[in-house]
Amino acid sequence: TVWATPSVVRPWLPLRPADSHKGSTGHVLICGGSAGMTGAVAIAALAALRGGAGLVTAALRPGMPFAEKPLEVMATEWPALSGRLEAYRAIVAGPGMGTAPDGRELLAGLLRESGAPLVLDADALNLLAAEPALLRGHPASLILTPHPGEMARLTGLSVAAVQADRLETARRYAAEWNAVVVLKGARTITALPTGESYINSTGNPGMATAGMGDALSGLIAALLAQGLVPWRAAAAAVFLHGLAGDNAAGRLGPAGILASDVIGEFPVALKAL
Amino acid sequence: TVWATPSVVRPWLPLRPADSHKGSTGHVLICGGSAGMTGAVAIAALAALRGGAGLVTAALRPGMPFAEKPLEVMATEWPALSGRLEAYRAIVAGPGMGTAPDGRELLAGLLRESGAPLVLDADALNLLAAEPALLRGHPASLILTPHPGEMARLTGLSVAAVQADRLETARRYAAEWNAVVVLKGARTITALPTGESYINSTGNPGMATAGMGDALSGLIAALLAQGLVPWRAAAAAVFLHGLAGDNAAGRLGPAGILASDVIGEFPVALKAL
Amino acid sequence: TVWATPSVVRPWLPLRPADSHKGSTGHVLICGGSAGMTGAVAIAALAALRGGAGLVTAALRPGMPFAEKPLEVMATEWPALSGRLEAYRAIVAGPGMGTAPDGRELLAGLLRESGAPLVLDADALNLLAAEPALLRGHPASLILTPHPGEMARLTGLSVAAVQADRLETARRYAAEWNAVVVLKGARTITALPTGESYINSTGNPGMATAGMGDALSGLIAALLAQGLVPWRAAAAAVFLHGLAGDNAAGRLGPAGILASDVIGEFPVALKAL
Amino acid sequence: TVWATPSVVRPWLPLRPADSHKGSTGHVLICGGSAGMTGAVAIAALAALRGGAGLVTAALRPGMPFAEKPLEVMATEWPALSGRLEAYRAIVAGPGMGTAPDGRELLAGLLRESGAPLVLDADALNLLAAEPALLRGHPASLILTPHPGEMARLTGLSVAAVQADRLETARRYAAEWNAVVVLKGARTITALPTGESYINSTGNPGMATAGMGDALSGLIAALLAQGLVPWRAAAAAVFLHGLAGDNAAGRLGPAGILASDVIGEFPVALKAL
Repeated sequence: TVWATPSVVRPWLPLRPADSHKGSTGHVLICGGSAGMTGAVAIAALAALRGGAGLVTAALRPGMPFAEKPLEVMATEWPALSGRLEAYRAIVAGPGMGTAPDGRELLAGLLRESGAPLVLDADALNLLAAEPALLRGHPASLILTPHPGEMARLTGLSVAAVQADRLETARRYAAEWNAVVVLKGARTITALPTGESYINSTGNPGMATAGMGDALSGLIAALLAQGLVPWRAAAAAVFLHGLAGDNAAGRLGPAGILASDVIGEFPVALKAL
Repeated sequence: TVWATPSVVRPWLPLRPADSHKGSTGHVLICGGSAGMTGAVAIAALAALRGGAGLVTAALRPGMPFAEKPLEVMATEWPALSGRLEAYRAIVAGPGMGTAPDGRELLAGLLRESGAPLVLDADALNLLAAEPALLRGHPASLILTPHPGEMARLTGLSVAAVQADRLETARRYAAEWNAVVVLKGARTITALPTGESYINSTGNPGMATAGMGDALSGLIAALLAQGLVPWRAAAAAVFLHGLAGDNAAGRLGPAGILASDVIGEFPVALKAL
Repeated sequence: TVWATPSVVRPWLPLRPADSHKGSTGHVLICGGSAGMTGAVAIAALAALRGGAGLVTAALRPGMPFAEKPLEVMATEWPALSGRLEAYRAIVAGPGMGTAPDGRELLAGLLRESGAPLVLDADALNLLAAEPALLRGHPASLILTPHPGEMARLTGLSVAAVQADRLETARRYAAEWNAVVVLKGARTITALPTGESYINSTGNPGMATAGMGDALSGLIAALLAQGLVPWRAAAAAVFLHGLAGDNAAGRLGPAGILASDVIGEFPVALKAL
Repeated sequence: TVWATPSVVRPWLPLRPADSHKGSTGHVLICGGSAGMTGAVAIAALAALRGGAGLVTAALRPGMPFAEKPLEVMATEWPALSGRLEAYRAIVAGPGMGTAPDGRELLAGLLRESGAPLVLDADALNLLAAEPALLRGHPASLILTPHPGEMARLTGLSVAAVQADRLETARRYAAEWNAVVVLKGARTITALPTGESYINSTGNPGMATAGMGDALSGLIAALLAQGLVPWRAAAAAVFLHGLAGDNAAGRLGPAGILASDVIGEFPVALKAL
């Protein structure tokens, strides 16, 4: 187990060669956005751009208005994805996705078809909890980012049991699921299927607010799209996300920070590191 | 009667423990948003987030577009609320709600079903003025936030009579309604059913503009959601709202401040206090 | 003819008494917003709020989506206005209104029914040019804010003739129309029906861009709503608008300023004056 | 071949006479915006305004919602353009346009009807690649702004061949197409049909992200609308766009810059030059 500090994370960060173009810096897909929950997709999409991804496409449930769409984000609908995943270098599924049958179909399709690493959060985790068989036999690397409640649903443990030994729980299921597991909360754990793990050293309780998880999943995807291996993308994103949150709290105060504020600090955190 | 000053309010403020998560910092529901009035809900929702609430759901009248929806806010529609209020630790009703029969049904349902404290503002107060019987027999704590015109409608007094003895009027009806009454205006009064009352020491005439009341109701709800008892949530929110307004006026000038500007100052006011 | 300078304008500005409330600071109505032109209404509405108005309602052509609606602005549709104008202390007509028959009906209704001062700009001026009889017999004070092209259409003169003697043209038609005439352009003229006139001393060519006229009309309405007489509201708004534009140009540069930037400077300009 | 430096570009920049008005500073039309791609039009439109254009109209495919529309931008739909292009002093086609038959018709119509210079980017280039005959016989000056992949499709060369001699490739096709060719990438080339060419000295790899090309096309159009000849508009816009990007990277960091950030720096870059 390693304590994630600047000197650990810094060497992993993507370099941006002089001849970078928006193709080379990677295309991220964010899948989610049921009725009333489209903001979660917008947050993850913005986070991916602020994390340095070259292109971001947001895929929403069909027919959703998308009032919060950032200028720089492209939008599409779930059914348009099937058979067209090759363009994406990292995929996030879950933010505001809902757990209705069409969301289940979307998730199953991504797990079946995607060769690019998949970051699964929020409702994608709830769908997996309801149908663990989905976790078997996918071609892609997986990064699961549960908070303790989601981890409890995924594992059948109580929240108290998850929290009683966060490190061991994360490591055990990372191995069982053959996935990188990011167990969120104070001192977020990033556990690898190999048994290695990282404990995060950044972040603050002001980040206990809506959309912070969406921001993290977008940032992980941005680092994946820029070429980091999944476990480094996960542990580095956790570190940077917390550092950006610490910067936002330093500027604004310990409560009342928005996920947007933290996302806006990503470039500065990347630079400062 | 107590003069609300920093030393009075400071000890009430929520602490944010290191293991906070968006569940523990509280889920606020904002109910309102008829045609052309959805911005009021957006303001109250943003205010709740900037006041430190963990999650905010905005409930609008069915079929309303919600162009102003902040990224971090979830949206739903009124009829989806019935029987599903347990998740919320504080509820605001009124901003842009309108006074049509479906709004009346919404309000009656909230008063009947909610166990969480209810902040009633704007059109919720107008509905109560038209049907005072709604105020009887509800299970939840109530916080009413009338401006003098709304107070006059609620009490049957003239505005002049309300203003002639603001303190006494607020105290009398706080007792009669068994509710915390926040009588807005210069030197806002917070009166408790017990007869205690607080006179606010912050705020400025630049705050006499659209949406400032919505911002206050969202901030009260944020403090409720973080565990303050209703009268402290009300009096502290009034103080912080005025302090944030004073900061905005100091930065921008004595006129032309927007409610958004004041909301943006909430975290700094919380920190400075 | 008076050169509008800070010492001339300063004494006119509204004071904001300590007991101001959003009713006392005035309700502004902005009428306009045909397809693709709703942004003009949003700009005028924001300008009215940033100029210190207490409440602003935007009235759009029926069925228009209003993606740009600011949080603090209420929205309605044209046909809902008839017989309901008493609430407004100042009315702007024209921004993005179009010149179709329903716009003509709206304008005719406002001229017939409004007792509050009317600021007429953009398409309202084009409609008046097509049907000058509309200018006769209205109960309200009028402020017309043509640029030279609109002035030419209104008067039947060529643009060159308008510009050849801007002061005399504005004064002549202010008397003929019994209206305050704001002839925009470098050194904007404000002419009164009495023959008095003001020449503005602020502003810069960076303000030659979309929406600056909408911003001016909203600011005039804000000052009217706060109690200024029409000619003072017009001349003071012209001065403040130019001062805000000068501040924006000082901060950003001589080109590429947006109307939004200038509106954001209104409170600071009001304070600095 | 000239190295584009401040001393080369500075003398080309538009002066803004004291009597400028939004008519004299030029009206830009941006054509694009298919489903999910309307943000590209919004970026180009904002870029045109931030580059000093007086008016900007965005033309989208019929029926598209336009949640991202900036306040200062007017909107219309493609079919409304035919026979009505005289008002525009510069036209951009391509951002988010798609390559469906109606987009092809739009492009063909612009090439046939426009007397104003046309900036062709993105999907407009893809349509030209599929139907090179469109490039023949148009009345207007053309500026093509391909990235290496688009240049490869336009020329039938491989990307490697394009990149192997960027300068020569750009010059050859500028002559062949009788168009200004802006071959984007590190050290963007601006090549004239005459054989002259400029190599850009600004920009950084943080600009390898979504919407940067849209921002450039809007800025070229802004300079065209203010009276620059096409090759100067192109080379100067490339220089300013890179300078603005360098300023944004200096402020925010080398990765995670948004196109919006860079556009916001246009006025400062124009001033600093």
